[in-house]
Amino acid sequence: MEHKLKRLKNKLHEVNDLNMVSALLNWDQSTYMPPGGAAARGRQMATIGRLAHEKFTDPEIGKLLDDLRPFEESLPYDSDDASLIRVTRRSYEKSTKIPAKLVSEFSAHRAGAYQAWTKARPNNDFTAIRPNLEKTLDYSRQIADCFPGYDHIADPLIDFSDEGMKADSIRALFAELRQQLVPIVQTITAQEIADGSCLHQSYPTDQQLAFGSAIIKRYGYDFERGRQDMTHHPFMTKFSLGDVRITTRVKEDDLSEALFSTLHEAGHALYEQGINQKFEGTPLAGGASSGVHESQSRLWENLVGRSRGFWAHYYPQLQIAFPEQLSHVPLDTFYRAINRVSRSLIRTDADEVTYNLHVMIRFDLELQLLEGTLAVKDLPEAWHGRYQSDLGLRALDDRDGVLQDVHWFGGWIGGAFQGYTLGNIMSALFFDEALKAHPDIPVQIEQGKFDTLHTWLKENVYQHGSKFTANELIELVSGGPLTIEPYMRYLRTKFGALYSL
Amino acid sequence: MEHKLKRLKNKLHEVNDLNMVSALLNWDQSTYMPPGGAAARGRQMATIGRLAHEKFTDPEIGKLLDDLRPFEESLPYDSDDASLIRVTRRSYEKSTKIPAKLVSEFSAHRAGAYQAWTKARPNNDFTAIRPNLEKTLDYSRQIADCFPGYDHIADPLIDFSDEGMKADSIRALFAELRQQLVPIVQTITAQEIADGSCLHQSYPTDQQLAFGSAIIKRYGYDFERGRQDMTHHPFMTKFSLGDVRITTRVKEDDLSEALFSTLHEAGHALYEQGINQKFEGTPLAGGASSGVHESQSRLWENLVGRSRGFWAHYYPQLQIAFPEQLSHVPLDTFYRAINRVSRSLIRTDADEVTYNLHVMIRFDLELQLLEGTLAVKDLPEAWHGRYQSDLGLRALDDRDGVLQDVHWFGGWIGGAFQGYTLGNIMSALFFDEALKAHPDIPVQIEQGKFDTLHTWLKENVYQHGSKFTANELIELVSGGPLTIEPYMRYLRTKFGALYSL
Repeated sequence: MEHKLKRLKNKLHEVNDLNMVSALLNWDQSTYMPPGGAAARGRQMATIGRLAHEKFTDPEIGKLLDDLRPFEESLPYDSDDASLIRVTRRSYEKSTKIPAKLVSEFSAHRAGAYQAWTKARPNNDFTAIRPNLEKTLDYSRQIADCFPGYDHIADPLIDFSDEGMKADSIRALFAELRQQLVPIVQTITAQEIADGSCLHQSYPTDQQLAFGSAIIKRYGYDFERGRQDMTHHPFMTKFSLGDVRITTRVKEDDLSEALFSTLHEAGHALYEQGINQKFEGTPLAGGASSGVHESQSRLWENLVGRSRGFWAHYYPQLQIAFPEQLSHVPLDTFYRAINRVSRSLIRTDADEVTYNLHVMIRFDLELQLLEGTLAVKDLPEAWHGRYQSDLGLRALDDRDGVLQDVHWFGGWIGGAFQGYTLGNIMSALFFDEALKAHPDIPVQIEQGKFDTLHTWLKENVYQHGSKFTANELIELVSGGPLTIEPYMRYLRTKFGALYSL
Repeated sequence: MEHKLKRLKNKLHEVNDLNMVSALLNWDQSTYMPPGGAAARGRQMATIGRLAHEKFTDPEIGKLLDDLRPFEESLPYDSDDASLIRVTRRSYEKSTKIPAKLVSEFSAHRAGAYQAWTKARPNNDFTAIRPNLEKTLDYSRQIADCFPGYDHIADPLIDFSDEGMKADSIRALFAELRQQLVPIVQTITAQEIADGSCLHQSYPTDQQLAFGSAIIKRYGYDFERGRQDMTHHPFMTKFSLGDVRITTRVKEDDLSEALFSTLHEAGHALYEQGINQKFEGTPLAGGASSGVHESQSRLWENLVGRSRGFWAHYYPQLQIAFPEQLSHVPLDTFYRAINRVSRSLIRTDADEVTYNLHVMIRFDLELQLLEGTLAVKDLPEAWHGRYQSDLGLRALDDRDGVLQDVHWFGGWIGGAFQGYTLGNIMSALFFDEALKAHPDIPVQIEQGKFDTLHTWLKENVYQHGSKFTANELIELVSGGPLTIEPYMRYLRTKFGALYSL
């Protein structure tokens, strides 16, 4: 068995090397690659992607996983070896159960659909892309049907990014959240809107970057095992547990852009840098789910980085960095500006309070499409209807409506959105547990100290990598299932101090 | 046949993708990778290297090459398809004739020898590394013996970097060069040494980089298909013909460092950017040999970039960029400084006149070691003897003697050095032919115009990629074999104007 486990690990290391190389090809493409490199880079990414898939779906891996089952069952569930075999088997099944023909057909379709979307959106032409979207829906159902035995047709699709989560339970959780959020948004937006103008002055790029770097270094982001570069759409990526990089973009006329995207991506990176080094090169060396990953970016961006205590410490330093822009702006004005709540049509512009409404609209529509209770032709109107009922807004056209996000046009329908809101819900749950263990964390944050929080997160969340599913991890940390209570309490407390709720 | 050729090309594209990915892994390691990424990066490079080797040595490629032989023979020698098959076959034989066991044993040995060298050199301890070097010599002979039928045992090793070049003819060429160079060096170094102090003031990094970039842009280096980054040991690399990057290093107290290494690497890059785009992804998309590649770096660095005409145009601009440092320094003083000749012990510090003496010493010693006319134990003394006779200098120890260069300690013995001097010789030959075709090139250079020269080089050298060997290319361009005449004429003219010769 030792021999077979070693053989499995060797094969997984090779797959991992290829996956990490794919990540580097992508990072370079998004940061430094000159325009002339684009065509060949596309081919290189396709070649490496294909080799990684070939190597991972090698029937020998399936055979090894079968042979190792008795060994796995002889070990504790949470042992490293049992977890490696279990998590690898789940991925292996996901990678092998979809027929190669379906994978390649869908892949070709996606590329076409994406291209069509890049034209349809500026033209506000849903009709042009409707046949593509109908085909995408058909493929999405076919993919789900490769995993029979589901409770809801979206379950297998959700499982790809949020392992073990089910459509029905997420829907119930989201319904509860929506019920509580909609009136809060209504109450807040009926009040005077905060003045955000202090953020929109001229802020030189270098000082912005230096300020963000200094903060994430204090957070615990290790620049010896990472770095920060410029890009158009910020992301976190890793090439090994020792090389976890973040990217950012700077707007000289918007201080919040680089600052909060830096804190956000650093949150993702702290998670990856905190994974147990012994998982290096295996499927355990990653986050538990897209939701758990997002919980960490949101925790460091919002629960820490947009808190009053945090800025009680950092605002004087920010004023020193930008004296002309901020010396006359009181902390309270700045704090209100970075926590300004306003209803908007665009998900990516949304604030902490309204953001989840955007996400849940998309999640619900995805489920209805997959269930067949909503036809693609009726999607634009369904979108407008939900924006009207949840946010009290209606987009003028489909450009800012159903054509807004790339997700459905560059991938399948189902499982693409729930992670954002699950992440917000979990961020408060984890933060709450950290506070229970260390009630002095808020005081430390007011002193610009993050060690206790960071250490607690490493020990309770990060180190495990993807050993546990999100639900297992939440049970382990909180002793119960996922609940919106800590999140709603967080929102009510924070925004209750800013607005009459 | 069409089908088989297409199949061959597809397989070669895959190998090429992997090789380009290796180049990216290496570039990132040398430019941006944080220290924590090192361990995993080593494994990733090994994995990609192994896959590239496996894919290229696939017996199916051998079979396709055999099957395509009649097709190849039906085509003109210089046709694209015949050249692709011919050049691929040569590489395939090089890659398949060395037994896998020997490759892996030698690879392990090299890693150990390199590690030992990194300790032996600072300790000035040749004795410690002698057994490693003896083993390296043994491996080098074994590798050469995988290619029976050679005239000289070094021929197969030279062939890896300078295809078609033979030890005996290089030795004859070098003997002639040495005979002419040694007295010139003696004559020059007996005269007053030029004052180089103007180069050693404080030159801010950003202005240095901006100045170098502006020049290579004028040379014709296309920043839409390349870029420049910082590194420790400058190099050129490419990820496709549309993405040819250079790297440089800046010393604030030495203006010549970044400037001339930029011109040097840009020369390599101009070559790669000038290769016919239709060779993309095949073995034809590279330089003809290490010598021809070096000829282009040297041509743009020295024959153009250290010429009086060039600085007649650029020196006033350099003075504007660095007024405090250079406004009081006459052009003549600057020109003498960048062309200062002095005898030194270190190859990489050498000037245009003495550089080849360093290279030829190493080349001759390599041949003697391989022939068995020099024992490894006698190498340090042989080194000192040749430095005494050729340069009139003797190093105080082996640190600046036989332990100076990494080449023998990180690779095999044989074929590592000749390309540097072949490159210098060829640089003058190609430049000479360009001048014959366009006698106004020197006048254009005085005006900061390089189009005519660049276009001639693209048409006569660059576009061909590795379709022709160095000797074939020289024959094609000059109508005769490689000769030192143009090079010696260049050196005598240039340095005759600076010194009494």
